[in-house]
Amino acid sequence: MRTFVTLLTDFGTADGYVAEMKGVLLAAAPDAVAIDASHEIPPHDVEAARLALARYWRRYPAGSVHVVVVDPGVGSSRAALAIESDGRFLVGPDNGVLSPALLSPGARAVALRVAPNASPTFHGRDVFAPAAARLALGDGIDLLGDPSLDPLVRRTPEAHRRADGAVEGEVITIDRFGNCVTNLMTRRGGVVDVGTVRCAIVRAYDDGAPGAPIALVGSSGLVEIAVRGGSAAQRLGLRRGSRVALRAEH
Amino acid sequence: MRTFVTLLTDFGTADGYVAEMKGVLLAAAPDAVAIDASHEIPPHDVEAARLALARYWRRYPAGSVHVVVVDPGVGSSRAALAIESDGRFLVGPDNGVLSPALLSPGARAVALRVAPNASPTFHGRDVFAPAAARLALGDGIDLLGDPSLDPLVRRTPEAHRRADGAVEGEVITIDRFGNCVTNLMTRRGGVVDVGTVRCAIVRAYDDGAPGAPIALVGSSGLVEIAVRGGSAAQRLGLRRGSRVALRAEH
Amino acid sequence: MRTFVTLLTDFGTADGYVAEMKGVLLAAAPDAVAIDASHEIPPHDVEAARLALARYWRRYPAGSVHVVVVDPGVGSSRAALAIESDGRFLVGPDNGVLSPALLSPGARAVALRVAPNASPTFHGRDVFAPAAARLALGDGIDLLGDPSLDPLVRRTPEAHRRADGAVEGEVITIDRFGNCVTNLMTRRGGVVDVGTVRCAIVRAYDDGAPGAPIALVGSSGLVEIAVRGGSAAQRLGLRRGSRVALRAEH
Repeated sequence: MRTFVTLLTDFGTADGYVAEMKGVLLAAAPDAVAIDASHEIPPHDVEAARLALARYWRRYPAGSVHVVVVDPGVGSSRAALAIESDGRFLVGPDNGVLSPALLSPGARAVALRVAPNASPTFHGRDVFAPAAARLALGDGIDLLGDPSLDPLVRRTPEAHRRADGAVEGEVITIDRFGNCVTNLMTRRGGVVDVGTVRCAIVRAYDDGAPGAPIALVGSSGLVEIAVRGGSAAQRLGLRRGSRVALRAEH
Repeated sequence: MRTFVTLLTDFGTADGYVAEMKGVLLAAAPDAVAIDASHEIPPHDVEAARLALARYWRRYPAGSVHVVVVDPGVGSSRAALAIESDGRFLVGPDNGVLSPALLSPGARAVALRVAPNASPTFHGRDVFAPAAARLALGDGIDLLGDPSLDPLVRRTPEAHRRADGAVEGEVITIDRFGNCVTNLMTRRGGVVDVGTVRCAIVRAYDDGAPGAPIALVGSSGLVEIAVRGGSAAQRLGLRRGSRVALRAEH
Repeated sequence: MRTFVTLLTDFGTADGYVAEMKGVLLAAAPDAVAIDASHEIPPHDVEAARLALARYWRRYPAGSVHVVVVDPGVGSSRAALAIESDGRFLVGPDNGVLSPALLSPGARAVALRVAPNASPTFHGRDVFAPAAARLALGDGIDLLGDPSLDPLVRRTPEAHRRADGAVEGEVITIDRFGNCVTNLMTRRGGVVDVGTVRCAIVRAYDDGAPGAPIALVGSSGLVEIAVRGGSAAQRLGLRRGSRVALRAEH
């Protein structure tokens, strides 16, 4: 049985760091199947990586290994983690980027042992890829390290209910099309206020009038702001962190 | 026997959509081999995707599956297609992007059934990846849908002969080096007029004088305009749609 | 046993050239495992490709094949090479890009035979991918061509010792984070002078004060200039070729 090992980094590919990591992985676990998730996470953008990982980690078969190296603190005292969660394995730094798996019920984490000769600037190659290879070969996380005693970093940006009954949230990511994904969730419909612009929640991009801002429930269950055939981010001047408010239907 | 499944999208990779699609594909068809064709098609650029697909779809072994998700009409009434053509399989929206395979003699198409719970914003994950998985597992297209009754969208930008004997065409894509690929074809040599600039058709980039515009027959048989060691697009102010004219040799 | 075939190009992916190369490779060698190293090398940047290749070529298992197509001279009289070095195989143009393997003791090279119908604009598809497929299938380089009689292009940018005892080198690449990798090497510590700015050599990025330029020995053994949490290239106005000087500790 082939084991899938996905790779998510902020390295870009042009410098050869990613190719080097893949080589280390495949030399140690030649039957693993390396899958590029992305190497285009903005440099040091832990939050963007967390959101990307949330989308896909559970889609891979049980036994799959997810490597996440968006790691501004490489070489510092931050822990390097291996996690088992819902039958999948993850490795990456203890900076919150692995929160989607860590927050799942039954998740277990260990702090990876870091070899003394590991480069303090490239744990992707010298810590995370070797750990992923061992997991792909069938080792459990308990062979790779000891349960972390310190509390682990967890990230969960949450929307909150305001006094007026609306739920206030924010734009958490903007995709390549200019759609603005928020941390709001709804099953009931309603409207989303973006500054002074009110957006009706519709079913699909195509239900909007061309050029008019709309809201809809995206494919991961989160409310997003969109403009049919255009960029909502540009049309409404939105960026990550922009405030939005959801009013349920009456 | 492993089945290759290529993926062509305009998603970029940073948001995790591509990784999610691959997870759905590989969870359903673990022996498939996912091959990234590109995820850097400009957003909603059906024409660019059509041209990329034209280059490669027939290069993969019979039985291969090509997934193309450049889909501005996702969630609208446009059909979702599965095509069998020349022994290969393709899935994607009915917007002309699959024309290279659809226009091949003997091609057959069905309209995929869309499950009621499919996300109206992400058919790549909920319609096309599952269909590709079934094709990779050996199902025929007839198990995935019914022959489309409506005429399908086909795209074939064609050059045409002018009264003065020249063949008039246009720039259909500009590659990363600034070479301008046209829809002109020739086996006989001649010259290509780009505005007031006349370009001789030479054999290879290296046959041009540095900085001088030249024309040549590119690797897919189409005439392209180039500048040795530079960008023809920049040097001549060309963009997609710019007119060019081919005059055969006398 | 699966054979890994890595691919390094300056094509980008959007035009379909890379997907076409992979198709040719996999149609001829269906059991090969295609690994994307990078397709985002800046156009015609032989030096950037050489440095990327240096990082990873030896990390893959013996028998692996590395395809490098950064080839401004395609279609000219430059030779097309296959190299065997330290148990790995490489194919690419004779322009110095393969120097990391070529300079390794015991390396052997042959000039590939170019079929008369090979496109003079796309040796990646018509020369290098087919050669890689044959190597992946077990052919030796001697079956693919004859030993090159002409001297091959080799690139080795070297630092040199100045009269005042410092070693003068240069920035050879700048990574996505703005870290400036130089051609300086040291095992003893010391300082690096960048213009009038003196950078202490520290262990890890995290050992710098936020915003202050530092130097460290990077993961490939080369000295790099960095700024914790920022871009050294931007902070110090460095570009490729900028001069730096290493003074050993007393």
